[in-house]
Amino acid sequence: MSVNRVVGVDLGGTKILAGLIEDGRVLAEVERATPTTSQEALLDGLAAAVRELPLDGVTAVGFGIPSRVDHRHGIALGSVNTPLRDVPFEAEMHARLGLPVAVENDATCAAYAEYAHGVGRGTVDFMMLTLGTGVGGGIVTGGALYRAWTELGHMVIVADGEPCAGACSGRGHVEAYCSGTAANRVAREVLGPNGTARDLIEQRHPALAEIGHYLGIAIGSLINIFGPERVAIGGGFGVAAFDHLLPAARTAVLREALAPAGQDVEIELAQLGAEAGLIGAGLVALEAV
Amino acid sequence: MSVNRVVGVDLGGTKILAGLIEDGRVLAEVERATPTTSQEALLDGLAAAVRELPLDGVTAVGFGIPSRVDHRHGIALGSVNTPLRDVPFEAEMHARLGLPVAVENDATCAAYAEYAHGVGRGTVDFMMLTLGTGVGGGIVTGGALYRAWTELGHMVIVADGEPCAGACSGRGHVEAYCSGTAANRVAREVLGPNGTARDLIEQRHPALAEIGHYLGIAIGSLINIFGPERVAIGGGFGVAAFDHLLPAARTAVLREALAPAGQDVEIELAQLGAEAGLIGAGLVALEAV
Repeated sequence: MSVNRVVGVDLGGTKILAGLIEDGRVLAEVERATPTTSQEALLDGLAAAVRELPLDGVTAVGFGIPSRVDHRHGIALGSVNTPLRDVPFEAEMHARLGLPVAVENDATCAAYAEYAHGVGRGTVDFMMLTLGTGVGGGIVTGGALYRAWTELGHMVIVADGEPCAGACSGRGHVEAYCSGTAANRVAREVLGPNGTARDLIEQRHPALAEIGHYLGIAIGSLINIFGPERVAIGGGFGVAAFDHLLPAARTAVLREALAPAGQDVEIELAQLGAEAGLIGAGLVALEAV
Repeated sequence: MSVNRVVGVDLGGTKILAGLIEDGRVLAEVERATPTTSQEALLDGLAAAVRELPLDGVTAVGFGIPSRVDHRHGIALGSVNTPLRDVPFEAEMHARLGLPVAVENDATCAAYAEYAHGVGRGTVDFMMLTLGTGVGGGIVTGGALYRAWTELGHMVIVADGEPCAGACSGRGHVEAYCSGTAANRVAREVLGPNGTARDLIEQRHPALAEIGHYLGIAIGSLINIFGPERVAIGGGFGVAAFDHLLPAARTAVLREALAPAGQDVEIELAQLGAEAGLIGAGLVALEAV
């Protein structure tokens, strides 16, 4: 029995994925619907999903949650799609499970997984952006996961630009230009009220170059802040649109990133797919042991 | 004789400041003109400045330099105002001085000093922006200095906006809107060809509110990335214009930062003045011991 045996949990707005993980391999996996009626129901549902796995020999449980995290106190500060707000998450889950618990933002978990077991292998300074309903991301610096807010989707790239959706009052954030939701908005603008991001991709529509331009501006800006040698793009929209976004993104990266980083940086597709969050949560769990 | 006795050096475009430091106090200080004729002359000049100080009992020497730094290899990657480019800085200075050497970006050093001995005391998540000829900055997360590029002045805030000066090909970077150089440009636009940033400040000119707006957008964006509880503003222009920039900056921070961070964050004047870089370089030296 390995000390590396952990449970990783990826909490999404509609489903909970929980996996038994050893050395980055998922040995068993369960999927449950996300309870959204109350915070209590959600925490209980998470514990129930974990208990469906064989917990013999498990040393810790890690959770990737769609929320900002207060790392010092293990608190989930706020979440758009789930009923979590100012919850002492680590304490609540430890009380339910009796095992060491760690919690981290879901996109940060995915980035850590790609760094350790996916497209980030071999790097020491790595970044991942997930372009889905929203935009998230994570950073590895000098081989260590950078654990702060890193709400990279809420970096401003267009001062006084497009409003963010939902609870964010900001304007011109990356999320408002590079998410699948933003691509749907662009599709409605250029294709009419029934247009979707999927239509843009199927038609190889030139509007994707504009989205790629903004993505490249965001990546170039983040290179100047974090200095990654490789950038991974994941998320439903990001993976589907990658080939169409990349040319314009590369051009913008070359302009915005301080030379010679724009030429040196590699921009790659994420490799781990839907299991990235799970695997990354397991890596975060290991750090709690 | 304390193990905490170090030398900190702040390298600027026109002068070298070197100080003998113990527990954050500067015991002795020398100032020399910066040799700019060649890289060799500059490195020799830095060593000469250090040797003017009493080195008895000194355990390490830290350098704050106006350059991006490859932290793994102690290399100065590139500098706008000094002849440093791809220099194995730590090795070169160690060879000259025979003492452990550490190197860090100058604005990062200043931020670390303010965190440890200035306006950042009592925080664990702290950020500083210096608004001078350019814009620099540094980040402390969970009580530790974040050591990556953090060229915060080259974060994009206005996609396709004002061009950066000098060697940077980017557009719409913080530096092009919030530096003293940018304020001089604004002054020429609103006051005529002889207008300066100083004139704007003396006249309490409304154009400063626009600069403050962009500063607030940058701060809000950086809060979403790094989650500081307190932000310090330093640098020649930043300190002189602080009171005039702050109202508009606060309004923009409230809009851009994910709630409730915009309300909670403190925005304060830096306290250590011109010695911040020196003291921070000394702190970085301590980590090399």
